Amino acid sequence: MKILNIEHIGIAVGSGDKSRDFWEKILSLTMEHEERVAGQGVDTLIYPVGPSKIELLAATGPDSPVAKYLAKHGPGIHHVCLEVEDIKQAIKELKQSGIQPVFPTPQPGVEQTLVTFIHPRDTGGVLVELAQKGGTGSHGQE
Amino acid sequence: MKILNIEHIGIAVGSGDKSRDFWEKILSLTMEHEERVAGQGVDTLIYPVGPSKIELLAATGPDSPVAKYLAKHGPGIHHVCLEVEDIKQAIKELKQSGIQPVFPTPQPGVEQTLVTFIHPRDTGGVLVELAQKGGTGSHGQE
Repeated sequence: MKILNIEHIGIAVGSGDKSRDFWEKILSLTMEHEERVAGQGVDTLIYPVGPSKIELLAATGPDSPVAKYLAKHGPGIHHVCLEVEDIKQAIKELKQSGIQPVFPTPQPGVEQTLVTFIHPRDTGGVLVELAQKGGTGSHGQE
Repeated sequence: MKILNIEHIGIAVGSGDKSRDFWEKILSLTMEHEERVAGQGVDTLIYPVGPSKIELLAATGPDSPVAKYLAKHGPGIHHVCLEVEDIKQAIKELKQSGIQPVFPTPQPGVEQTLVTFIHPRDTGGVLVELAQKGGTGSHGQE
């Protein structure tokens, strides 16, 4: 598969913690966009950093994967998202390597991406998201 | 402070685990450079991803911060490194905000950087490295 960039780093934040102050007031990053990804149970705050982004992830409810992560690990880096040229090709190659991605068919992510995830057991401890940009138009959902 | 890019993501790997296979064989990333950072007790393997990098971090010995991280958390994302324009200015601003960086004066990092770290207690659970590129010449160490 062709990997183009670190699209973003996803950071799990609890309600009322000081994460947002750190990224906005101490590091002076600007929050460009906020978006709910209902299918993944997260509210995201997006801070561009060069051609990448920091995304703060808050759970939308107790069944959200982020809520479960916070309960087990506390706040911190939840996943890294890599931009791929072709998400369907990436999923095909994962399966050929014996890896079952979390979403066997691409799902909508933030900002018109199509995404899947690779479980930490298959990567050496890291939750990896793969995202294709501009993938939610008619072509991407064909 | 002026933050330019996500310089790299540092991933702690144990001896003999499958992390390296994942990044090299499954994702087809190319290891460009390896380097020991004696002052931080790590051996690094560096994989460019667009203008950023994935760095796999192995402990050089049992007293390495990475060894302690692995003993507590297992393998996974250890830190995110943000490229700053001016590391001394960044440290000055952190101190003005009441944050004591791990290195109060910049230390040599990988690939001729000058770096410091911000403890997870000050960021909302994330170990953040700040790095200035090209900083280890005569100007940077003045």
